[in-house]
Amino acid sequence: VTVEPGTARIAVDLLGGDHAPAVVVDGALRACQADPALHLLLVGPVEVAGEILAALDPVDRLRVRTASVGAGAHAGGHLEVGVRTAVLAVADGVADAVVSAGSTGATVTAAALSLGRRPGIRRPALAAVLPTVAGRVVLLDVGASIDPDTATIAGHAALGAAYAATLHGLDTVRVGLLSIGTEPGKGDRVRRDAGPLLQRMRLPAGGRYVGLVEGHDVVLGERADVVVTDGFAGNVLLKGLEAAYALTPARRRDAPPRAAVLLGVEGTVVVCHGAATGDDLASGIALAAHLHRRAVVATLHALVSGPGTQAAQ
Amino acid sequence: VTVEPGTARIAVDLLGGDHAPAVVVDGALRACQADPALHLLLVGPVEVAGEILAALDPVDRLRVRTASVGAGAHAGGHLEVGVRTAVLAVADGVADAVVSAGSTGATVTAAALSLGRRPGIRRPALAAVLPTVAGRVVLLDVGASIDPDTATIAGHAALGAAYAATLHGLDTVRVGLLSIGTEPGKGDRVRRDAGPLLQRMRLPAGGRYVGLVEGHDVVLGERADVVVTDGFAGNVLLKGLEAAYALTPARRRDAPPRAAVLLGVEGTVVVCHGAATGDDLASGIALAAHLHRRAVVATLHALVSGPGTQAAQ
Repeated sequence: VTVEPGTARIAVDLLGGDHAPAVVVDGALRACQADPALHLLLVGPVEVAGEILAALDPVDRLRVRTASVGAGAHAGGHLEVGVRTAVLAVADGVADAVVSAGSTGATVTAAALSLGRRPGIRRPALAAVLPTVAGRVVLLDVGASIDPDTATIAGHAALGAAYAATLHGLDTVRVGLLSIGTEPGKGDRVRRDAGPLLQRMRLPAGGRYVGLVEGHDVVLGERADVVVTDGFAGNVLLKGLEAAYALTPARRRDAPPRAAVLLGVEGTVVVCHGAATGDDLASGIALAAHLHRRAVVATLHALVSGPGTQAAQ
Repeated sequence: VTVEPGTARIAVDLLGGDHAPAVVVDGALRACQADPALHLLLVGPVEVAGEILAALDPVDRLRVRTASVGAGAHAGGHLEVGVRTAVLAVADGVADAVVSAGSTGATVTAAALSLGRRPGIRRPALAAVLPTVAGRVVLLDVGASIDPDTATIAGHAALGAAYAATLHGLDTVRVGLLSIGTEPGKGDRVRRDAGPLLQRMRLPAGGRYVGLVEGHDVVLGERADVVVTDGFAGNVLLKGLEAAYALTPARRRDAPPRAAVLLGVEGTVVVCHGAATGDDLASGIALAAHLHRRAVVATLHALVSGPGTQAAQ
């Protein structure tokens, strides 16, 4: 892993996740040791942050700050206070990005409220990057928008195209709509409405709608660089594929981080699985640092708002 | 592969599938050669059936009959006539089961009309069996019911429990509802309604509702023997996982057939992918023969209608 230049200040929610705080401590430590220009803002109980500080070399401790969240927060079940505080640090300019493995709903709500949504985006989208036989594919939404309307799906298609162009340096981006057949009109009610809308739409960043794609296209990667779907189907497919890929260790070595980015809010927000491991947390933190250093969110917002892009009707 | 005793007469739709008739010819030939008690009713153009007959030993030809479907059917795009004729052969008692790789919609419609649906089943379900780390899991529906209501999902849960009990010889069957989190109430509108209904329902065949499960549970197999969902999410997940598993040839050797069974109709109907290979067709035909020989459909119907089973409200 090559570390890119530039300081990145990442707020980490110590209380988020099924195995918090242990795996978050582990992930934060690894991330910190792997990237000498990484600064962490640890949000959570002082004793947990203290564990991380104690394990670091004295010189590395200078890169870690803490924001104490009431010691009773974890025991009392008020886990949202951690992610809310971490997101506020980004809103206040104290951190460049936030990482949480806590409840997706709580993170999305905190981000929408504290950072603000992009104009025209009703509901942010979680975008995951998956390895494919032919390269990488951006799958969105993987869990932020439940029962979305077609305008939401169209907005996500635009965000996804701009994200893939920015993150993967693509000149043209093929955007597919996930369905259960490839002939126009295949799928359920939402898909039958969304297909024609995407067909009419002008996508940003060299985006081109390629029509309906299927579950296997997210594995093969030959037909689309971006696959757009609702948060239910996207989450089910992502969790299934990640579990299937985890059975074949050989494929995992060059795999993208098992973390998703929240698109459509004014800031860099990375969400890890509730069941994330220390490895996953470390790669989620590294992803957040990468997105900040490459100014991915600002660049994709400029692409989405740029001339020639037509907002979804 | 051990061949079970007993004649099985399988009607095969020669025109169904993206690569028909070539792969169907290939699959029918392999199935016929592998199972000396298999009888085939080839439904399609005479010249295609003739190809299969020509490739068989004279003695094996005695096990093959043909039902000619107008030579123009394929060219004219009237592919449904093939599957309709094949399903009618089962309805008329001329065949014991039917196999098609054609349009799922056409097969479901033909089966519902010609064979009839089970009482209380508004929409049949396609059930696929997937390999898991812990055993096998029945996933349904994988494409027959689009935008189902909760009563349809509840009916499918009952069919799935009875199918798993019959096919896999289970005394108790754990049934999970696919969602995007495990706490009660997680998921979209349909899932939030279906969860409480499944909780109240009495499932047949030692079925027990275990609550919400996630995409990775279909891979790991630790939490449920049957995973019930709508045809959209089920199809997307199935196609994704099958493609992922196909990348790891080692896992495929003992894999269950890549074919789905239509549950909720009065007969044995096996559906292969549109993109099925000759191998897939052969294993779909073998599955149809197995289901007939073990009287799986009759047994599961008796279980679903048996005492102690409560129909979905």
